[in-house]
Amino acid sequence: HYSSEVRTVTLIPGDGIGPEISAAVQKIFAAANVPIQWESVDVTPVRGPDGKFGIPQAAIDSVNKHKVGLKGPLMTPVGKGHRSLNLALRKEFNLYANVRPCRSLEGYKTLYDNVDVITIRENTEGEYSGIEHEIVDGVVQSIKLITEEASTRVAEFAFQYAKENGRHKVTAVHKANIMRMSDGLFLRCCRDQAEKHPDVKFEEKYLDTVCLNMVQDPGLYDVLVMPNLYGDILSDMCAGLIGGLGLTPSGNIGLNGALFESVHGTAPDIAGQDKANPTALLLSAVMMLRYMKLVQHADLIENACLDVIKEEKFRTGDLGGNAKCSEFTNEICRRVENRG
Amino acid sequence: HYSSEVRTVTLIPGDGIGPEISAAVQKIFAAANVPIQWESVDVTPVRGPDGKFGIPQAAIDSVNKHKVGLKGPLMTPVGKGHRSLNLALRKEFNLYANVRPCRSLEGYKTLYDNVDVITIRENTEGEYSGIEHEIVDGVVQSIKLITEEASTRVAEFAFQYAKENGRHKVTAVHKANIMRMSDGLFLRCCRDQAEKHPDVKFEEKYLDTVCLNMVQDPGLYDVLVMPNLYGDILSDMCAGLIGGLGLTPSGNIGLNGALFESVHGTAPDIAGQDKANPTALLLSAVMMLRYMKLVQHADLIENACLDVIKEEKFRTGDLGGNAKCSEFTNEICRRVENRG
Ligand SMILES: CC(C)[C@H](C(=O)O)[C@@H](O)C(=O)O
Ligand SMILES: CC(C)[C@H](C(=O)O)[C@@H](O)C(=O)O
Repeated sequence: HYSSEVRTVTLIPGDGIGPEISAAVQKIFAAANVPIQWESVDVTPVRGPDGKFGIPQAAIDSVNKHKVGLKGPLMTPVGKGHRSLNLALRKEFNLYANVRPCRSLEGYKTLYDNVDVITIRENTEGEYSGIEHEIVDGVVQSIKLITEEASTRVAEFAFQYAKENGRHKVTAVHKANIMRMSDGLFLRCCRDQAEKHPDVKFEEKYLDTVCLNMVQDPGLYDVLVMPNLYGDILSDMCAGLIGGLGLTPSGNIGLNGALFESVHGTAPDIAGQDKANPTALLLSAVMMLRYMKLVQHADLIENACLDVIKEEKFRTGDLGGNAKCSEFTNEICRRVENRG
Repeated sequence: HYSSEVRTVTLIPGDGIGPEISAAVQKIFAAANVPIQWESVDVTPVRGPDGKFGIPQAAIDSVNKHKVGLKGPLMTPVGKGHRSLNLALRKEFNLYANVRPCRSLEGYKTLYDNVDVITIRENTEGEYSGIEHEIVDGVVQSIKLITEEASTRVAEFAFQYAKENGRHKVTAVHKANIMRMSDGLFLRCCRDQAEKHPDVKFEEKYLDTVCLNMVQDPGLYDVLVMPNLYGDILSDMCAGLIGGLGLTPSGNIGLNGALFESVHGTAPDIAGQDKANPTALLLSAVMMLRYMKLVQHADLIENACLDVIKEEKFRTGDLGGNAKCSEFTNEICRRVENRG
């Protein structure tokens, strides 16, 4: 009964446990009366007219049309020619900012209870440029590419995000003491944005220092912005602090759309057995709802999910419990139906 | 009374708290009758005949002559032209392997009590190549350089180290899913060495996965070998797990010599106040003794140091105690004198 027109969203269920956790999310969304309709697409690479493998056109068209998508875990195709499909999607839709919030879950105990950080990762260049050469036999160079355009874009995004989400500080993470020109440029772009957003606190920290501090006192950090690879590392580390990739959402934001995804693997060993934990994908879907300004639905589902995790009897195997995916899902549905 | 001829070792006391923690180490070595004589040198850059600033020739000659050195923290000179002096030293003496052991200290409580890992970092190339260009305005590339020679050398070192120190597993840490050619080459070199050392277990892990696992269960890892930047990050993170850089030793090993150093900063705010913790430099000196095959002296000093840290009343400020540097040092001296 939160009225709004129904919008269509692309769903990429993914491989392994992907289809079952995607079904769980769909079920919970239906129970919460989210005004969304799903368009399921398959992104398994197909051979194009040029003979090369690529994402099927129908999938690309769907995301381009609806501008918002949710994606389960994808297998990386085997064989030398294939780059990661995850990366191909980020590239295809120019998803320049990767946002990964990590917050300690009340009731699910780890060594840390005060984690509340958001890593914002440049998502299109840096160490992920894909440009590499063998110069002579046994000598290889990989190019880390940093541009003012992409750095400014992600830095601006970080400050905007901080403001819109009531966060107080942005930390730029870098190794400009070593990569003076590339990380130096990234840092300069962050400083420029800091000047334009004087209401948000700004600091600069070396990546190694952040890694050290984060495991000692995660409360030191708030929003962190950084080049591609550093974000890959830091976001996984932060996920570790709160219980792993099964619990952490992720959003890839572009100029013309956004793709939300769980970052964990396809877990082929438990696929199809009703054992998977849909939390990461569900919380990614909640991020998607906020992005779509469906804030009340987002809050409803997020609260129900976190409340159910607090109760040990509904925890799935990865969290040390015995519940099935369907039991966990049904309990969330019961709660959103009661409250919604 | 452990007989051996007296050998000379270069000492670079360093800046800030460097001189006082170096003096502490010298005092403890004297109390333990270590058959070493120190040659103190200053590495503050001087302008050479070519007009460029560089490490003074006397310092270079000293290390080249004695082949073993101990180094306190160094300030990075300000100004654009200067690269880090730490890096300059690694480069000058071709110190290709950086070894950083991290072990939970009995009696000094952190969130973790089972850390016992050794990061072995390629120390001469990778992201630290120093090769960078601005291609056009606002577009910078930094080159990550990976060679078969340096990768093989450090991989071989890791397996040798594992064997000689009774460790059971070597983990190669990489992002060869992204940097297929450069990290791919590094990984191949590790695999080749693994084949030559079938008595040591070998595994390959993504850097992000290691970061995640390390904060959840450091007991999963033993010896880790990796390209330069990854080692910078992981070693700091591991140091964080056991209490910080004030407690962790480091050794830079080359073909013709080795330089042992504390990795923490110069702490100018407490310099000269008898407040500094000499542990990291002392444990680095202990690594140096093992490298010089002065194993009994190494054990004697290391045990005394760890025993004193266990007793809260001798802890320095960084460990939450009130002891002065001199009190901590004297207590270690007292113990090595009694036992030595
Ligand atoms: C699957 C892999 C290519 C990817 C990355 O390295 O970015 C993953 O680790 C991530 O963080 O999304
Ligand atoms: C001081 C700095 C240049 C250095 C590095 O980045 O290697 C330091 O962090 C280290 O780990 O020794």
